[in-house]
Amino acid sequence: MKWWGWGLEGAQFTHEDKPELAPFIRKVLGVDVGRATTAPIRWADLDVPVPTLPDGLRVALEHAVTAAFVSVDPLDRVVHARGKSLRELIRQRRGDVPRVPDVVVRPGSEDEITAVLQAALTAGAVIIAFGGGSSISGSLEAPADELRPVISVDLARLNKVLAIDGTSRLARVQAGVFGPHLEEQLGAQGYTFGHFPDSFTYSTLGGWIATRSSGMQSDAYGDIADLTKGLRVVTPFGTLITRPVPATSTGPSVREMVLGSEGRLGIITEATVQVRRIPERREILGYLFPTFADGLAAMRDIAAGECSVSVTRVSDAPETQFSFATRTRPTLIDRLQSRALTTYLQRRRGFDLSQMCLAFIGYEGSERHVAEQRQAVGTIVKRHGALCIGRGPGVLYDQKKFDTPYIRDFLLDRRVAADVSETAMPWSQLMRVYDVVSAAAYRAFAELGVQGYLMCHLSHSYHVGACLYFTFAFEPTPGADMIVEYDVVKSAIQQAFVDNGATLSHHHAVGTEHARWLEQDISAPGVVMLRALFDATDPGRHLNPGKIV
Amino acid sequence: MKWWGWGLEGAQFTHEDKPELAPFIRKVLGVDVGRATTAPIRWADLDVPVPTLPDGLRVALEHAVTAAFVSVDPLDRVVHARGKSLRELIRQRRGDVPRVPDVVVRPGSEDEITAVLQAALTAGAVIIAFGGGSSISGSLEAPADELRPVISVDLARLNKVLAIDGTSRLARVQAGVFGPHLEEQLGAQGYTFGHFPDSFTYSTLGGWIATRSSGMQSDAYGDIADLTKGLRVVTPFGTLITRPVPATSTGPSVREMVLGSEGRLGIITEATVQVRRIPERREILGYLFPTFADGLAAMRDIAAGECSVSVTRVSDAPETQFSFATRTRPTLIDRLQSRALTTYLQRRRGFDLSQMCLAFIGYEGSERHVAEQRQAVGTIVKRHGALCIGRGPGVLYDQKKFDTPYIRDFLLDRRVAADVSETAMPWSQLMRVYDVVSAAAYRAFAELGVQGYLMCHLSHSYHVGACLYFTFAFEPTPGADMIVEYDVVKSAIQQAFVDNGATLSHHHAVGTEHARWLEQDISAPGVVMLRALFDATDPGRHLNPGKIV
Repeated sequence: MKWWGWGLEGAQFTHEDKPELAPFIRKVLGVDVGRATTAPIRWADLDVPVPTLPDGLRVALEHAVTAAFVSVDPLDRVVHARGKSLRELIRQRRGDVPRVPDVVVRPGSEDEITAVLQAALTAGAVIIAFGGGSSISGSLEAPADELRPVISVDLARLNKVLAIDGTSRLARVQAGVFGPHLEEQLGAQGYTFGHFPDSFTYSTLGGWIATRSSGMQSDAYGDIADLTKGLRVVTPFGTLITRPVPATSTGPSVREMVLGSEGRLGIITEATVQVRRIPERREILGYLFPTFADGLAAMRDIAAGECSVSVTRVSDAPETQFSFATRTRPTLIDRLQSRALTTYLQRRRGFDLSQMCLAFIGYEGSERHVAEQRQAVGTIVKRHGALCIGRGPGVLYDQKKFDTPYIRDFLLDRRVAADVSETAMPWSQLMRVYDVVSAAAYRAFAELGVQGYLMCHLSHSYHVGACLYFTFAFEPTPGADMIVEYDVVKSAIQQAFVDNGATLSHHHAVGTEHARWLEQDISAPGVVMLRALFDATDPGRHLNPGKIV
Repeated sequence: MKWWGWGLEGAQFTHEDKPELAPFIRKVLGVDVGRATTAPIRWADLDVPVPTLPDGLRVALEHAVTAAFVSVDPLDRVVHARGKSLRELIRQRRGDVPRVPDVVVRPGSEDEITAVLQAALTAGAVIIAFGGGSSISGSLEAPADELRPVISVDLARLNKVLAIDGTSRLARVQAGVFGPHLEEQLGAQGYTFGHFPDSFTYSTLGGWIATRSSGMQSDAYGDIADLTKGLRVVTPFGTLITRPVPATSTGPSVREMVLGSEGRLGIITEATVQVRRIPERREILGYLFPTFADGLAAMRDIAAGECSVSVTRVSDAPETQFSFATRTRPTLIDRLQSRALTTYLQRRRGFDLSQMCLAFIGYEGSERHVAEQRQAVGTIVKRHGALCIGRGPGVLYDQKKFDTPYIRDFLLDRRVAADVSETAMPWSQLMRVYDVVSAAAYRAFAELGVQGYLMCHLSHSYHVGACLYFTFAFEPTPGADMIVEYDVVKSAIQQAFVDNGATLSHHHAVGTEHARWLEQDISAPGVVMLRALFDATDPGRHLNPGKIV
């Protein structure tokens, strides 16, 4: 894994096969992508602190997991020091390394995790659970002033599907499994978990649970909170075991307290999760709407009740234009078809192409079910002026959906800051939040005197509301600290969320990035309850201290 | 409300219009329903303790809600002293009154609730929130040895739907509203909440939330946990306000901590809940299955995915026979049709009538949707040998569904104990739990030397499992303490649940009745987490002490 960016060494985003992208970026950000790039600091120049690892603790950890799985290697420690928030990427590239963990341990079983936790408690050390390291909310970094030894517990060896109960459609799965490996193991027996966050390739089941994640097909499969039925969590006060029952009335749900707990209550070792038979058919269709408001209204009608779809995604006009600009080299036929389409849209349908929005709707199930749903959805979207543009764009979207996170590194190479903020709110507030956030972001760009770009899509629909997912980018003022200017824009957007009835995050968690809006979101008594829970179960603050509250 | 039984004075269950019931009860319980009945102790003979209400507290409460809404009336206090668990009914009938609250207050607003709570904290008193008083898990009774003043806070004046956001399909509703009044207010604007527990007539929104309730149509509408989007809760540390967002990733969810909290975290004053448009069509169809296992297998297949139904209910053979025995006086045509049907089932379909099971499946939505779902379900149930018997039984079931709780009083009058226990588990465990529970109950009956009856139905289906709802009845040994013998049977059933992977309750909560199985269900660390939460937020144990843990 790259210590300075997203994904594996060697994998990266490129504009070279996307002829319209460079002109687009020049237009909207005033940036020439061909400009000289700035590489991250070289590994050799990085000043990695010497680990503080008392002999007794080291012996205990080696006893717990064997010496082969106790690492003080500097690269290993730096990779485990942080997640992939923009702030973290910028700092890593600069060589501004944080309070790097003193040791990385890789337990191979729940018993080994228990032994690691006991060793840590005995030594008065700090434990930070590490799944895929893809957090973009600052959930993984030790506090800068942490004087105690810091242990990163990498769960990657716990990567098995232990059992599938086909009658109940439940699978017992170890928490450290990565998305593709999970789907591969389930797929071999004809099942799918159906959880596909953008981070899918580099994130784990335990990480999804610890952050209350959502995936691209969650409209059909449910968010991770819905999919997770039973849990095993190693805590300082024993191994928490909740039963994999479909529903229960046992007081405040301790299973739900673990969802979103970001390693503060213990280390999730295993979950029993809902799985489904791989559907006969999976299909994503593209649609064009005259305006963003039309697209949102259509998704709201679809969410009303009788249709069942797997993906509802509507890009606003700026994101639609970005999507079109990332098309790979079109053939002559592509170009002719595209010209015929735009002519049709403008002349026959009266579309204003600058306002047009691209949407995707996903269908899954039997051939018959998919056909019925397509027809039912077709009736609804037609009422909102949509035109179905078929399967092509959906196939493309499906292929490149996990590549998006690489773009941030590509832009950072060119000294452009790009990041995301997402939220959820009732349907009645969607357009208002969209407008207010746009105004806040462009006010922030103006304040900084930069040329910025903001784009947005609806990413999940529910009966009562939806998730809006914003992406913003700008080149900071020459000579300015990118982090300072980034904070101005990011804060303006987050503040607009909480000031307008939306939540600080729909599925990216709190971490340290969003912690300062928590009280405004869940009210002061809500923060009291969270503190009460954390302080009483971990009075010594050994478990990922400083996150959430 | 009856101080000694279910529902309002005057309403009651009778066998007189059900000609087959008396012979049925004689056969299965050995009891003659025509025998001399035992009435509860007369009100005049009840020894209600004098309230302990310090002057300062009384003045403060009168200041908070005005004197008109502060009651020390003995009947009022006795009605608020307990819920309606069998144990509580038996004790009330005997005149064995508990630690009756010293005062009943009826606040009219959230501000008044805050003032009541402050008055209670200042005086070192105990506060027990009271909705409809229909709890059957012992969630409402003050500890017998409670020396502090006990205040029952009756929420019935907070009974308004405050606002409906039609765009978002969300309603802001005060917590004290009763089921029928809620549906009436929503119905006037074309909406329904869709939450219909057996207790519907005598339970409130706040009570449903505080106990994690489910209703009969929850398969379509969701359990109360799904329906409740935002909350307002008056706590000792301020008013907790969670936003009515469709989903959020703000650490462990404080909204979810309130679900099932049984008044231990504060007093729920208001919720913003999901509502739906009243469907064009609502229909419940009856089906007959050759065996219970066939019925369960059919529901499992329906829950797999593509059908959407509102009710899935399958009675086992004993409950089916009970249902048939509660038919009101049949006409000659009914009898002829019924005879033709049984002949057809036996001769043409090979049904063993002693094993036959009655099922209901509910459909809601547009005419077209209902027709499509009926057809899809029809294909599935046919595979499991079912015969559709049309709308008649469903209409009957729908009419009498809220009358069931009256039967316990009818039987207690005849010295017969009858009660329920319900649970949830994965599909693969359903038949095993059913068998093990049956064996445990009949072993308990044998141990007591009584003739007992156990019956069961599947009441809710989910993708991964279902709820089984057991009802048992027996006449205790002559001279025995009914509560002691009741405990033998009830405990055997509950223990069989937790010993076999099922939960202690799917939707009736923990209270005091189920508290002793909590650790076996959610594990010792789960109990540590609940205690941590309660102790840290209410160190003085002023809020409904002794419940859940």
